[in-house]
Amino acid sequence: MSPHPLGGHFGDRLADAIAAHGPLCVGLDPYPDRIPVLFGEGLDAIERFGEAVIDAVAGEVAALKPQIALFERFGPEALAALARLTERARDAGLIVILDAKRGDIGATAAGYAEAYLGPAAWLCADAVTVNPYMGMDTLEPWLLNADTAGKGVVVLVRTSNPGAAALQNADMSGAPAHIRLCQALRPFVEARRGASGWSSVMAVVGATAPDEARAIRDALPSAPFLVPGYGAQGAGAADALAGAVAGPRGLEGVLVNASRGVLYPPLADTAGTDAQWRDAIQQAVASAKADLALTDA
Amino acid sequence: MSPHPLGGHFGDRLADAIAAHGPLCVGLDPYPDRIPVLFGEGLDAIERFGEAVIDAVAGEVAALKPQIALFERFGPEALAALARLTERARDAGLIVILDAKRGDIGATAAGYAEAYLGPAAWLCADAVTVNPYMGMDTLEPWLLNADTAGKGVVVLVRTSNPGAAALQNADMSGAPAHIRLCQALRPFVEARRGASGWSSVMAVVGATAPDEARAIRDALPSAPFLVPGYGAQGAGAADALAGAVAGPRGLEGVLVNASRGVLYPPLADTAGTDAQWRDAIQQAVASAKADLALTDA
Repeated sequence: MSPHPLGGHFGDRLADAIAAHGPLCVGLDPYPDRIPVLFGEGLDAIERFGEAVIDAVAGEVAALKPQIALFERFGPEALAALARLTERARDAGLIVILDAKRGDIGATAAGYAEAYLGPAAWLCADAVTVNPYMGMDTLEPWLLNADTAGKGVVVLVRTSNPGAAALQNADMSGAPAHIRLCQALRPFVEARRGASGWSSVMAVVGATAPDEARAIRDALPSAPFLVPGYGAQGAGAADALAGAVAGPRGLEGVLVNASRGVLYPPLADTAGTDAQWRDAIQQAVASAKADLALTDA
Repeated sequence: MSPHPLGGHFGDRLADAIAAHGPLCVGLDPYPDRIPVLFGEGLDAIERFGEAVIDAVAGEVAALKPQIALFERFGPEALAALARLTERARDAGLIVILDAKRGDIGATAAGYAEAYLGPAAWLCADAVTVNPYMGMDTLEPWLLNADTAGKGVVVLVRTSNPGAAALQNADMSGAPAHIRLCQALRPFVEARRGASGWSSVMAVVGATAPDEARAIRDALPSAPFLVPGYGAQGAGAADALAGAVAGPRGLEGVLVNASRGVLYPPLADTAGTDAQWRDAIQQAVASAKADLALTDA
């Protein structure tokens, strides 16, 4: 039976997972040329690598963030493998945030939301990243499906890529565009607060812009942040945690993603056995967790 | 053999198709509850309906725009069916614009672009719609794959949904946000003009905002427009053609999408045979073409 029964509140589940395991989220980004040879070749290697990553990090971290593009790249069979991996991760107690960055109007957005969040989802994630550029009306089918199924919606607010600032930080009637977006999002966020105080609507806020993260925290006080850009993209732990809030259970409200640094540490590249590879991954996870606890490993 | 050999210029191919068949693009939006019973049930019905639509409109219209969400909704097997439909449409001489609205950073965007535009695409479209909200750097993997394979990239600029204006029309340092986006896009558009004068970078410009379409035409003189919102969404032919330019071969630079009005006309709902259904679809196509020619059917 799934440890995630229908009807749990996503914001509360996420807050519990962060309190139990810390703010680290492992990004599942399979690059075939970086997957160790001990997992084999082709699509099979991607799935076996994903299974091994899930088994190595379950119980150690709060969440897993599969990047659907890196499965979609290889066609329908790879997407079927991702659906199996998602089920495995949720069965192991990980919160699964599907990184899909979908965005479309009405009935079309409903199609995506049904696929990934709804009660009959074929790839059943706990939350999905969505792109709000087309307007707040495009979020409604996502929220409807999420609310029905105890799931979350993760809205792109301020991304971590170098070109993000040009549009997202441009002045929009006296405030940066991403702050205007926060103002439009705020009622949707506040309407979905759980018992923990945290909403089931999250915001993507890159670690590469910590001052902006603090401003976004003021604009969206109840939205948990999903933070890309930590580690391989250059930002340190303090920057990644800029939007966190001190609560009774430690730092709250921030989930920090690490992909390459945790999936492909140097020791894993040279691992000759499954056990050596697993040790290397678990060391990388422990090191990132200690870094994000702002203590030494 | 495919009628679309590698290396043709997408903007020129599109201009030729519009000159030959007019500006109509048929949107392939399968809704199971609207597909006539004569196509059967389940996934099979979606694929057989798609095949019949392609066979009915090939040689009559310039392009086909499958909405990937409405296949993705039903899982990997439906995506495999869409790949087969895409091949069938291109073999029949239709330009296929995959409506996917993807948008992500670097290596992730490259994954999507390889899937749908690159030389080894498993679902091989002629162009794909992309979301530019994350920044101009996120378009580069799309352009790279498109340039290599004679394909196009279709950038969301001003969409037709009711909530689009709040962000896309907001004042950004003295101009609407969508005009700022056009300014950032312009060098990418101009660098990809073909012999026809039209670029392989298109802009999505909704029919529901004709005054804005004229302003976007001034800002992006070489970008063909993909125009949603005609027909079922309420805009008429004159509004849909607001961004068109009079050229030696008639109105140029605009491709107008129609989905529901062409796929599900009332006569098709009551068709008892394949031939009756096909007649109904072809009448709906002829009627939309006549409407867009600004003449009577």
